[in-house]
Amino acid sequence: MNIKPLADRVIIKPLPMEEKTKSGIIMPDTAKEKPQEGEIVAAGPGKVEKGERIALEVKVGDRVMYSKYAGTEVKYDGQEYLILKETDILAIVG
Amino acid sequence: MNIKPLADRVIIKPLPMEEKTKSGIIMPDTAKEKPQEGEIVAAGPGKVEKGERIALEVKVGDRVMYSKYAGTEVKYDGQEYLILKETDILAIVG
Amino acid sequence: MNIKPLADRVIIKPLPMEEKTKSGIIMPDTAKEKPQEGEIVAAGPGKVEKGERIALEVKVGDRVMYSKYAGTEVKYDGQEYLILKETDILAIVG
Amino acid sequence: MNIKPLADRVIIKPLPMEEKTKSGIIMPDTAKEKPQEGEIVAAGPGKVEKGERIALEVKVGDRVMYSKYAGTEVKYDGQEYLILKETDILAIVG
Amino acid sequence: MNIKPLADRVIIKPLPMEEKTKSGIIMPDTAKEKPQEGEIVAAGPGKVEKGERIALEVKVGDRVMYSKYAGTEVKYDGQEYLILKETDILAIVG
Amino acid sequence: MNIKPLADRVIIKPLPMEEKTKSGIIMPDTAKEKPQEGEIVAAGPGKVEKGERIALEVKVGDRVMYSKYAGTEVKYDGQEYLILKETDILAIVG
Amino acid sequence: MNIKPLADRVIIKPLPMEEKTKSGIIMPDTAKEKPQEGEIVAAGPGKVEKGERIALEVKVGDRVMYSKYAGTEVKYDGQEYLILKETDILAIVG
Repeated sequence: MNIKPLADRVIIKPLPMEEKTKSGIIMPDTAKEKPQEGEIVAAGPGKVEKGERIALEVKVGDRVMYSKYAGTEVKYDGQEYLILKETDILAIVG
Repeated sequence: MNIKPLADRVIIKPLPMEEKTKSGIIMPDTAKEKPQEGEIVAAGPGKVEKGERIALEVKVGDRVMYSKYAGTEVKYDGQEYLILKETDILAIVG
Repeated sequence: MNIKPLADRVIIKPLPMEEKTKSGIIMPDTAKEKPQEGEIVAAGPGKVEKGERIALEVKVGDRVMYSKYAGTEVKYDGQEYLILKETDILAIVG
Repeated sequence: MNIKPLADRVIIKPLPMEEKTKSGIIMPDTAKEKPQEGEIVAAGPGKVEKGERIALEVKVGDRVMYSKYAGTEVKYDGQEYLILKETDILAIVG
Repeated sequence: MNIKPLADRVIIKPLPMEEKTKSGIIMPDTAKEKPQEGEIVAAGPGKVEKGERIALEVKVGDRVMYSKYAGTEVKYDGQEYLILKETDILAIVG
Repeated sequence: MNIKPLADRVIIKPLPMEEKTKSGIIMPDTAKEKPQEGEIVAAGPGKVEKGERIALEVKVGDRVMYSKYAGTEVKYDGQEYLILKETDILAIVG
Repeated sequence: MNIKPLADRVIIKPLPMEEKTKSGIIMPDTAKEKPQEGEIVAAGPGKVEKGERIALEVKVGDRVMYSKYAGTEVKYDGQEYLILKETDILAIVG
């Protein structure tokens, strides 16, 4: 993929529903916010704070949970992706 | 459990009502916010500030009280969990 | 009491109205916010800023005034307590 | 007085209207915010920033002007006082 | 004048309309905010940041332009003054 | 082009729709925010933080995706450009 | 001109419409914010951050583009000027 996110942004390929079932995560039926799952396909270099670059905790290939209201959608070669900041990622699903 | 929270997030397994009674904490009947109790089942590495990682005050196994409006719910192997930030934890119930 | 508040939080046992009269503090009848009085029964270790833990100015046993809109109520062994942050404490009543 | 304000808070005894006239300050009749005058009867140790305590610019005995919308009222031995932060004090009246 | 402003506050004696005309500044007739002119009659010592006091750029005697919506009015010996922060001063009129 | 953006601003020449199709990015038909594509034709020197200038991650010639609600439009020699801050750039398309 | 802006403020003499046409910048007819052009006729010394003064990127004589909603208008010797902060300047047109 030839899209390089800036700073602390990553590009995520959302998982289809079938894979979600296989990994064991099922979204509950309540009024709370429900996270989504996806795979990181590109990651920025980290943002700079006080002159130092803060490395990301996630890397390409990680399967992650993220807030479903976060980020910006893009379509590339027929596939939908999401660009979001690392702070919108909740956890790595190992 | 194979979910690793990022930064200063933890994963909490909420306590059922019966256990709450045993630990002696009963929620009062007022208009104020009422905390929930649960056990920490996974904890992030702490967030980075000014280039240094701040270790969490809580650890896996701690029983904690937390704001009931905080966090994101996930279901895993039929059990509901909550992902929230350490700052949403009020106290460790010892 | 086996509840340990995190960071800069304390647990306060509110004073009943009779004791308030004895200590000489009477709440005025105006539209301004009115503080409450209570005794600190547990205190956190202080929060971490720039890598250093800031010790609390208050300690267990202090009688304090605090904003009545602050904090989270909990009931423990039939007694109501309040968990709040040190910044919500206005003064120590000596 | 046995009330010790925390951090950068002070306790002020508001001046009655007669004294205000004597000191020469009269509130104007416009739509702008009008300050109040009072005497500082107790002062906190100053707040801590980056590990250092910032001493207050005001001290017990100072006559000060302050925003009338600031602070929390308390009554003690029949006298009304105001607890507010030093940043709500506009000037020392000399 | 025996009023000492705190931190980065100054006390300004507003110029009457006639003097404004003499100094060559005339307020335009548009919808934009229009500044006022006045003379600084008292200045605070500057505020403290990271343990260092930041000296003010203005001094007693300076004629300045300031936002007409800023500050707090006080009347002293029959004269109206304005207490405002240095950041509300736009320019020194030399 | 003789326009030099200040600090962390860049000037972007938006891509016409045909080029967008060629590069493979198609905007999806959902309610989420849709990014735009363009080429950077001028870049500021970076902004100063704590006395140090932070170099930009992007440079003149980069093809980038950016939020369509960001920035300020200008027309120059009959061509429309956009001035925006680097933080409004999502990714380099490369 | 005897007006000295404070901190990071500058005084701008707006360009009349004819000159704008000559410099090649024409404002587009869309709903987006449209910048204005003008010449800097006075500049402050820069603001102080962490004890160090940050020099301005612009200087007297620079032709600049700025947000038309920014700043405060003043009239001096029959000419209208604008006082604004450097952060409201988008680019140097040079």
